Amino acid sequence: MSDKGEYQRDLNYLPDRITADGRDGWPVEPGRYRLIVARACPWANRAVIVRRLLGLEPVLSMGIAGPVHDERSWSFDLDEGGRDPVLGIERLQEAFFKRDPEYPRGITVPAFVDVPSGKVVTNDFAQMTLDMSTEWTAYHRDGAPELYPEKLRDEIDDVAEKVFTDVNNAVYQCGFARSQEAYEHAYRKLFARLDWLSERLANQRYLVGDTITEADVRLFTTLVRFDAVYHGHFKCNRQKLTELPVLWAYTRDLFQTPGFGDTIDFPQIKEHYYVVHKNVNPTGIVPLGPDVSGWLTPHDREQLGGRPFGDGTPPGPPPAAERVPALA
Amino acid sequence: MSDKGEYQRDLNYLPDRITADGRDGWPVEPGRYRLIVARACPWANRAVIVRRLLGLEPVLSMGIAGPVHDERSWSFDLDEGGRDPVLGIERLQEAFFKRDPEYPRGITVPAFVDVPSGKVVTNDFAQMTLDMSTEWTAYHRDGAPELYPEKLRDEIDDVAEKVFTDVNNAVYQCGFARSQEAYEHAYRKLFARLDWLSERLANQRYLVGDTITEADVRLFTTLVRFDAVYHGHFKCNRQKLTELPVLWAYTRDLFQTPGFGDTIDFPQIKEHYYVVHKNVNPTGIVPLGPDVSGWLTPHDREQLGGRPFGDGTPPGPPPAAERVPALA
Repeated sequence: MSDKGEYQRDLNYLPDRITADGRDGWPVEPGRYRLIVARACPWANRAVIVRRLLGLEPVLSMGIAGPVHDERSWSFDLDEGGRDPVLGIERLQEAFFKRDPEYPRGITVPAFVDVPSGKVVTNDFAQMTLDMSTEWTAYHRDGAPELYPEKLRDEIDDVAEKVFTDVNNAVYQCGFARSQEAYEHAYRKLFARLDWLSERLANQRYLVGDTITEADVRLFTTLVRFDAVYHGHFKCNRQKLTELPVLWAYTRDLFQTPGFGDTIDFPQIKEHYYVVHKNVNPTGIVPLGPDVSGWLTPHDREQLGGRPFGDGTPPGPPPAAERVPALA
Repeated sequence: MSDKGEYQRDLNYLPDRITADGRDGWPVEPGRYRLIVARACPWANRAVIVRRLLGLEPVLSMGIAGPVHDERSWSFDLDEGGRDPVLGIERLQEAFFKRDPEYPRGITVPAFVDVPSGKVVTNDFAQMTLDMSTEWTAYHRDGAPELYPEKLRDEIDDVAEKVFTDVNNAVYQCGFARSQEAYEHAYRKLFARLDWLSERLANQRYLVGDTITEADVRLFTTLVRFDAVYHGHFKCNRQKLTELPVLWAYTRDLFQTPGFGDTIDFPQIKEHYYVVHKNVNPTGIVPLGPDVSGWLTPHDREQLGGRPFGDGTPPGPPPAAERVPALA
């Protein structure tokens, strides 16, 4: 919190990288690392989507923490016996403390964990997905898309920066504001950027170039949660996403694209935000709405052209163990 | 609260009635009584609308409490010096205590206050509007509508009972529920009734007969607040009103009818709910949304026929002192 009541995200993460050349001591290696996520979390959702799009499931396993956590953070209460079956731990905290017994910052997802040592390698979410695209290329599936193509990186970085500041993080600044002024500042920033995005996406199917990129992944994970949690719980309520025609069609288009919607668990998303943030929702009651039947309706974005996977192909269905229960 | 966490409204009010024959000791008399309301409150809003429709302004003055109150309830902080200019009191509580120094229940609006004695006559909101229609007839304006016509009373009472239980009160039961089960029960009851109302109103312009009646007033005061407060703050979020086409057009139609929309102050409505209910919204931050620009868009309900004021006419504009600042 700033002294004006603004929520400030701690962006200090464990900065190691898993790279092809292993220069930080963590070489890309099939079967060695485990991606720990929670379905609820938008930052983790990026990694879940990118892993699906690139087809890294066979070489990079995934552990899923439950939607609800206490002050000691994410735990594996969805797993049998309440333990991650590969790491054998109950709480993600244990893997952070194996890495650094004095680890002083937030226990966050997504995190890459080194399975043999049980230590967290990194939880630097922004770098993690880029490295999946650029360092794990030897293990991408046939037909994997280029999510971070060299010639578009400057533009992707530029758009992603705007989206991070004014959308991904701004929704939290609305919801966690501790002064009316801080809330209003974040709200205006958010909706001004959503208007800008609506204009940008009115005549082009994707954010950068004519294929899906990292920029789309990063915008999607916030927009898909908009009506379920940010609109009401975080007071981002100028309109619902369903009332912003361009962005609603854009988000539905991605939702209906393999690798996106099949990673989304609305009940877990709602449970996380409404139960964990007791300072925003003291009763812990989880809303029954919104109605989600609109997500699978036609979006008509094909008319704008675009080639979702470029010269590649869509991913197949998720492994059985990673399937999300169907939309209610 | 019930032991299942259900919110239960105390429906015991001061039961006296102001009548033409004065049988309770309170005869209808021009200039004698003052109607105390708050713009925020849906129960008071009924009386504000009915007074406008019937043109009772010259004979029944109105005092407006501010949107925010503490545990001692409504106060006149909008008035110069923080006192009602006619009653000379700071808090509505004073008028209740003049009536009964031990008054044990909630200090609620709307209330009729006897100006000479400064005592509350009644706060029985459901009876108050009916009496304005049926006991104050000698003072209705020329062209006043019949809001509670004899031949439609059974049907109006029947619809109003359903609307009270499943809409007017159910939104509070959603918002004040203290268990997930109680919330879900209220939510399902509410939206089932809204579906029933959508069906009823799809092919008829008003709820009962072909003119505006008391039944419409009672439904309007909840629907007009739906997106501003009930949708987010009270978790009535299957859809926004703007996403329920029949009810949205119906409510807009009434909003654009003289005597309805000109009584609505969205900033005061939002401030009341979000600031007063600290147990629901601990930060007291008031959302900037929703966008209200849609309220004055065409509703096309004229196509259904109907005669808003029957053989009567619309009321003129409100007295200058009672005008609500224009829609933002």
